[in-house]
Amino acid sequence: MRPRLVLFGDSITEMSFQSGGWGAALTDRFARQADVVLRGLSGYNTRWALKVLPRAMEGAADADPAAITVFFGANDASLPDQVSAHQNVPLEEYQSNLRAICGYFKERWPSTAIILITPPPIYEPARIRLCRDIHGVDDPSRQAERTNEAAGSYAQACISVAKELGHPVIDIWTKMQEFPDWQTSALSDGLHFTPTGNQILFHEVVKTLASIGFSQESLPSDLPRYREIDPKDPMKAFEV
Amino acid sequence: MRPRLVLFGDSITEMSFQSGGWGAALTDRFARQADVVLRGLSGYNTRWALKVLPRAMEGAADADPAAITVFFGANDASLPDQVSAHQNVPLEEYQSNLRAICGYFKERWPSTAIILITPPPIYEPARIRLCRDIHGVDDPSRQAERTNEAAGSYAQACISVAKELGHPVIDIWTKMQEFPDWQTSALSDGLHFTPTGNQILFHEVVKTLASIGFSQESLPSDLPRYREIDPKDPMKAFEV
Repeated sequence: MRPRLVLFGDSITEMSFQSGGWGAALTDRFARQADVVLRGLSGYNTRWALKVLPRAMEGAADADPAAITVFFGANDASLPDQVSAHQNVPLEEYQSNLRAICGYFKERWPSTAIILITPPPIYEPARIRLCRDIHGVDDPSRQAERTNEAAGSYAQACISVAKELGHPVIDIWTKMQEFPDWQTSALSDGLHFTPTGNQILFHEVVKTLASIGFSQESLPSDLPRYREIDPKDPMKAFEV
Repeated sequence: MRPRLVLFGDSITEMSFQSGGWGAALTDRFARQADVVLRGLSGYNTRWALKVLPRAMEGAADADPAAITVFFGANDASLPDQVSAHQNVPLEEYQSNLRAICGYFKERWPSTAIILITPPPIYEPARIRLCRDIHGVDDPSRQAERTNEAAGSYAQACISVAKELGHPVIDIWTKMQEFPDWQTSALSDGLHFTPTGNQILFHEVVKTLASIGFSQESLPSDLPRYREIDPKDPMKAFEV
């Protein structure tokens, strides 16, 4: 049976099939080997995700998927006293929600590899600019609704849950900040990903998948590749 | 149940999740409403596709998908006396193979809308250049292995099968040639699509899907959208 890869997360998952997106890149990479299923919920935090979990997974997989990415925290880490306060989830609840989400998948799909992804870094000036444009708040002393420091705390919290449960984790908060000018080269609005940012995450997911034995090299191809078809006797390739 | 859209075809389908690809764009458009399943087989013609049909559809859908795109002909139309001769399928066989493929889907998934797509136009100078680079043939009088005229005949043949069977058809051969400088703006190597070419097909598929009642406006969203969540009482949106 063709293995399946489920992508579960917030807007950075939902938007992962836009041009240059990491979800589309995964689908392309495993085009002849695996199916990628998108379950992205823009704006959602772990509290809301947990609430809708069974409904969100309807039709996602009948058999255990090979792997599922769980990518929340960017909204949980919204500051509790700014315009996105209603998206905020306290740090401890974020961790217990992550545990509950992983527990749900572990019970429903015992053989599925659960890959946690930390929230990405935040570039505050771009967030302030966006808030000004959307909410019309034009106070230069105004704080961003998300900060890189808060995102970093949630990233650490995510990593510690992953270690506790024994799941692989991608620390995209740290990884992304290793890239030159990540603030604008990897992030489009201080939070969401540019094609470069998408590539960074794509490569991390590919590396993590390979570490659990899910790679182009190890997965069978579902049907003969064009290069395996003998021009002198094409039909031979299709004999079972 | 979340509706499903299956994309079945040759390399132009298999590569449809590359950056700017039409398959990825469909996934993005229906991210909260439908699943898109990729079944692209690079290099395949209708003869080979027909041979592997049940295997190619393994895991694609348990229930009837809402729609399936059937997009072959670019390889069938390869000239029978050039370097891609082994991909050539005579025009009459191409038509009977298309009928058999559609018949298979009609029987397996009676309620699924079958959308035929004609082969795209060909820009011969780019094909000759590619043949020279790949096969090292440097004869300026050399013919391309695919011609726009041949592709046009297969496009007509595809349209006539679609009419005969009562299936919607996208005449991408004609449509693409309406665009300025389509030879290089829509095609990257005289056959495969640039992001612009992908956009042209994407819009045609979206229009055709809408004509059978499959659109952003008509499909339900599987869970509350962020904008429907009341910041003052977020959990209210999740009461079932």
